[in-house]
Amino acid sequence: MTDTTTAPVTVIGLGLMGRALAAAFLRAGHPTTVWNRTTSKAAELVAGGARLATTPGAALAASPLTIICLTDYTAVRDLLGASDVELSGSTVINLTSGDSAQARETARWAEQRGARYLDGAIMAVPPAIGTPDAVILHSGPRPDFEPHEATLAALGTVTHLGADHGLASLYDAAGLAMMWSVLNAWLLGTAMLRTAGVDAVTYAPFARMMAAGVADWLPGYAEQVDAGSFPAEVSALETDARAMTHLIEQSEALGVNAELPRLFKEIADRAIAAGHGGEQYPVLIEEFGRPAPG
Amino acid sequence: MTDTTTAPVTVIGLGLMGRALAAAFLRAGHPTTVWNRTTSKAAELVAGGARLATTPGAALAASPLTIICLTDYTAVRDLLGASDVELSGSTVINLTSGDSAQARETARWAEQRGARYLDGAIMAVPPAIGTPDAVILHSGPRPDFEPHEATLAALGTVTHLGADHGLASLYDAAGLAMMWSVLNAWLLGTAMLRTAGVDAVTYAPFARMMAAGVADWLPGYAEQVDAGSFPAEVSALETDARAMTHLIEQSEALGVNAELPRLFKEIADRAIAAGHGGEQYPVLIEEFGRPAPG
Repeated sequence: MTDTTTAPVTVIGLGLMGRALAAAFLRAGHPTTVWNRTTSKAAELVAGGARLATTPGAALAASPLTIICLTDYTAVRDLLGASDVELSGSTVINLTSGDSAQARETARWAEQRGARYLDGAIMAVPPAIGTPDAVILHSGPRPDFEPHEATLAALGTVTHLGADHGLASLYDAAGLAMMWSVLNAWLLGTAMLRTAGVDAVTYAPFARMMAAGVADWLPGYAEQVDAGSFPAEVSALETDARAMTHLIEQSEALGVNAELPRLFKEIADRAIAAGHGGEQYPVLIEEFGRPAPG
Repeated sequence: MTDTTTAPVTVIGLGLMGRALAAAFLRAGHPTTVWNRTTSKAAELVAGGARLATTPGAALAASPLTIICLTDYTAVRDLLGASDVELSGSTVINLTSGDSAQARETARWAEQRGARYLDGAIMAVPPAIGTPDAVILHSGPRPDFEPHEATLAALGTVTHLGADHGLASLYDAAGLAMMWSVLNAWLLGTAMLRTAGVDAVTYAPFARMMAAGVADWLPGYAEQVDAGSFPAEVSALETDARAMTHLIEQSEALGVNAELPRLFKEIADRAIAAGHGGEQYPVLIEEFGRPAPG
């Protein structure tokens, strides 16, 4: 086995995120090769010990593992399709943002050219890279991931989700939906409490407790979703819908934004109209699993 | 000082929640008086040691502390306004669901009649009453709350929010908005992952980690709100808006419900149009603090 701290690695694409990735590998002691269309972006990394490749093909050839972080999947295909690039035998991890269909197509394309290909998603901002706070999701064949797991650990908390190359971008999208949902609910609550002269800092611990408390219900509620059975053990959807009406009225009376509670009620009302008012909240999976009507 | 376990208490309104409250006081050893318009609802409690009062006035007179849990504030005013009710010298805690304006009006009305009045909100389902999971919020004058804090502890985790009687219902409403937001984001994510054959139970721990992780940002973000200054330390709103577009496209491509990400983007776009695209997410407090346009 190779000492993982001496495993060479290549980073292609030196935007803010790519530079953070390369810097984390350097800090962890990996011989690090970099390439970027605009060479000047590599200057600081080269000063810190990185080797600058002259072409994408040379960059890929320099290390058994290449991390790619570009602006979009078109740029990735252009780069990997360049005439001097030999993909056969390389392991490529593509951390470029994109959707699950792009990930699966690019995987097929790269594998046809002999590459071992993993798709990934970075759930962190550049300054967090190299700390445990940086969650980096990977999907693709596990045998292609495992030899590089220890090397990748230099970047943060590294996870393998499954063989389907689309999983990383699906988890990423779902995670962003959760992030904005928690932030928006907190902002709405903050706006409501400000009408009573309560500071955001005073209210925030309560919002944090609620979000974390409800998060703890999810594994149990997930069992209802998988079973397709939603007995109202805790409360019935029609009880939630009545409370949503109160939340809409309260928001309107306070002069804050009532759009979120109005949408929540619309979605719940559709399920109630379909006969699910006596079931528990997770029965809404049926509404979330299809496009909105109209 | 009275031994708090022997402090008598009265519970008026014996729906599911009122019965759970009275039962928790009985279990904790408090002499408990109950009253309900339909006497039969009291049968099990009386068998368990509760005393049944014959009128609301007698119920209030039986204990220094009376908990009221009725269907709405009109019912509360009807009951407390009955001719045999003497409010002077009583402490009344109203746990009936309602909005902040109703709480403040009822407080003024009850205080004019000599009552010490606290308004409360129960953030729990009846089976949780009597356990630490039952969070019960109180607002109103702290000197009226403190003598009963130990008695109220029989019901769950009891909090006093401040002197403004409207606070309990505002926190309650804000907490519900957070609850539905986390559940909806989890359902959307679950629907997305199901398109790739991932079980809800497999996805749930990730959703839980995301919700709890984002919740940890709130105290820091709250400082930006209070300061009214939103430097893009982590990322700029326009970066979020671009990722929201990807989430909408991904949701549409998967055939799941895209209403939530569309609303998130609409709200963000308004702030960007107002010139806030280079600031950090909490700048949206301005959008949440006013009614939606149009």
